[in-house]
Amino acid sequence: MPSDIEMKQVLQAYVDAYNQSDLEGLVGLFADDATVEDPYGTPAKNGREQIFEFYKGAMATGAKLTLSAPIRGSHGNAAAMAFDAVINTPQGDIIAASVIDVMTFNDQGKITSMRAYFGPSDLAGM
Amino acid sequence: MPSDIEMKQVLQAYVDAYNQSDLEGLVGLFADDATVEDPYGTPAKNGREQIFEFYKGAMATGAKLTLSAPIRGSHGNAAAMAFDAVINTPQGDIIAASVIDVMTFNDQGKITSMRAYFGPSDLAGM
Repeated sequence: MPSDIEMKQVLQAYVDAYNQSDLEGLVGLFADDATVEDPYGTPAKNGREQIFEFYKGAMATGAKLTLSAPIRGSHGNAAAMAFDAVINTPQGDIIAASVIDVMTFNDQGKITSMRAYFGPSDLAGM
Repeated sequence: MPSDIEMKQVLQAYVDAYNQSDLEGLVGLFADDATVEDPYGTPAKNGREQIFEFYKGAMATGAKLTLSAPIRGSHGNAAAMAFDAVINTPQGDIIAASVIDVMTFNDQGKITSMRAYFGPSDLAGM
């Protein structure tokens, strides 16, 4: 199992890759058979191909992630972070989602699952 | 399923009850057969009696919770929050843990599971 510091570094790498529109780099953080529930409560994306398509679409919105607080590790195989995802639209509007992501890891330090917690009341400007 | 706003209100009530040392009020937010993994990665506390004893001990430390960012809901049966748990010791020391809690709910709006994400690297002054 990776250390909690190693798992937190992967979450930071995820934020950095997302904000640099580094799609290959971001998807490479996931295990081949990973699942992504974003948002939690909707059907999961399963496996690298579906995850690639999901993040391709997400990055196309121009959204950028800003951490709300330091990333948290755990005493198990998971790490978590609170952040705002903000889109500055061409019309000058600001659309934001306040989110908490929880990710689990395999022994190789790859993400095996991701769940994004935000509800209808956590969206602003939409 | 409770709405995301209702679930967020329960998490706020949890913080308020914790900070007021209202043990009965806090434990009353949980379903009879709830589980608490605090921290995630350690054996779960199962059921109301074990949960009562766990929070009795936690409150005895004098820890107080301060939200790091607004509580998040979800599109499913869960809500999440990032906070710092701070203990001011009689010796004047400050002990802090940076934590993210994720809680799931039943249809009656009671907490069915709680997982607290923080690792060894998320503790300060300990």
